Amino acid sequence: MSAVWMVKVVGLGLVAISLSVELLGWLGRRLRPRKIRNEVLFFPSEMSCVEHIVNPNSPYTCLCPFPHGVETSFSRLLRILLSASSTLDLCVFAFSNMDLCRAVLALHNKGVVMRVLTDKDYAAITGSQIGVLRKAGICVRCDGGSRGSVYMHHKFAVVDGRLLITGSLNWTLQAVQANMENVLVTEEPDLLRPFIKEFDRLWVCNEPGQHHSLGT
Amino acid sequence: MSAVWMVKVVGLGLVAISLSVELLGWLGRRLRPRKIRNEVLFFPSEMSCVEHIVNPNSPYTCLCPFPHGVETSFSRLLRILLSASSTLDLCVFAFSNMDLCRAVLALHNKGVVMRVLTDKDYAAITGSQIGVLRKAGICVRCDGGSRGSVYMHHKFAVVDGRLLITGSLNWTLQAVQANMENVLVTEEPDLLRPFIKEFDRLWVCNEPGQHHSLGT
Repeated sequence: MSAVWMVKVVGLGLVAISLSVELLGWLGRRLRPRKIRNEVLFFPSEMSCVEHIVNPNSPYTCLCPFPHGVETSFSRLLRILLSASSTLDLCVFAFSNMDLCRAVLALHNKGVVMRVLTDKDYAAITGSQIGVLRKAGICVRCDGGSRGSVYMHHKFAVVDGRLLITGSLNWTLQAVQANMENVLVTEEPDLLRPFIKEFDRLWVCNEPGQHHSLGT
Repeated sequence: MSAVWMVKVVGLGLVAISLSVELLGWLGRRLRPRKIRNEVLFFPSEMSCVEHIVNPNSPYTCLCPFPHGVETSFSRLLRILLSASSTLDLCVFAFSNMDLCRAVLALHNKGVVMRVLTDKDYAAITGSQIGVLRKAGICVRCDGGSRGSVYMHHKFAVVDGRLLITGSLNWTLQAVQANMENVLVTEEPDLLRPFIKEFDRLWVCNEPGQHHSLGT
């Protein structure tokens, strides 16, 4: 075999090997499907200090009596919520938890575009943080109360249009610290998309001064 | 080439072809990941007759004034629930919806093994169907009420250990017909498994006469 033929055979061999490696890599990626984030948190949450999560840039050391540096269901929920970088759509029946309110205000101050939908009756009860959000300039719309004993009973949030937080947990201190509750966190498109669509529908239906049909 | 050689070559060729077909089929199945069931239902549900779902063997034609043969969020929820063939673990704060009660009783009568966990205070209110379930011989345990204003606030069910039904919806008429509510239905193992584990934990914690720690 001449030297030229040898070079051609070796060259072809190298091309074949590199193509095979490429193909195997592609197959590997296809065979190992992209991991979609799914997580479940249960409550009541243990008590722990969340100051370092809600206010990470504070120069002061927190002196509160709760354990510090402990990861709990609630600290996890706060972290997931605070991961929002562009939008937060929040649709929650009762909102009186002050730490969750501080987290939402922190996102608002960071420039995250916020839409809050809540229940008309519960927005007005003592301890509700809805007024605080409104005063801060966050866009809030109410649903439910105007139609008798009908509640806007959802408890979900959509973070950056990519992550759904939903479950039985109202955003109250009682729910977080006392009740048996659950929160699902998922990126699964088949679960996420219907919630995005439903939020948009409810948002339009409850535009101030508008009278839209609420048929589901 | 002799006839014997020809047979050997053709035989080897056929084996190679059949192995390749087998391999391609396997790759095809792996490349197309198994579809995991994910579904979201929103409420309030339209009103429709569900007699044919709850009582499919009835010889009588239903004469109720609601639309017949219409699929709604509620009829879908009933169908999913009634798909249980071996077990149903139910963990629900408020249970007063009579159609859901009839569905649970139908499953019990069919031999589906049932465990019901509910809130102590809400089990005793007027209209609660928990007493009806107990009288029918379904195993019910209560949580919550004994520890002051603490609620067992979950609203989930696990069907045959394979399907999770969860969301904001209490099993009441108000929730189904009036409120804005959501129900997720999923087979996703990362979401399903934690709920199965939590149900088992709460079930053991609330064994009558037992005093277990409820730390989460």
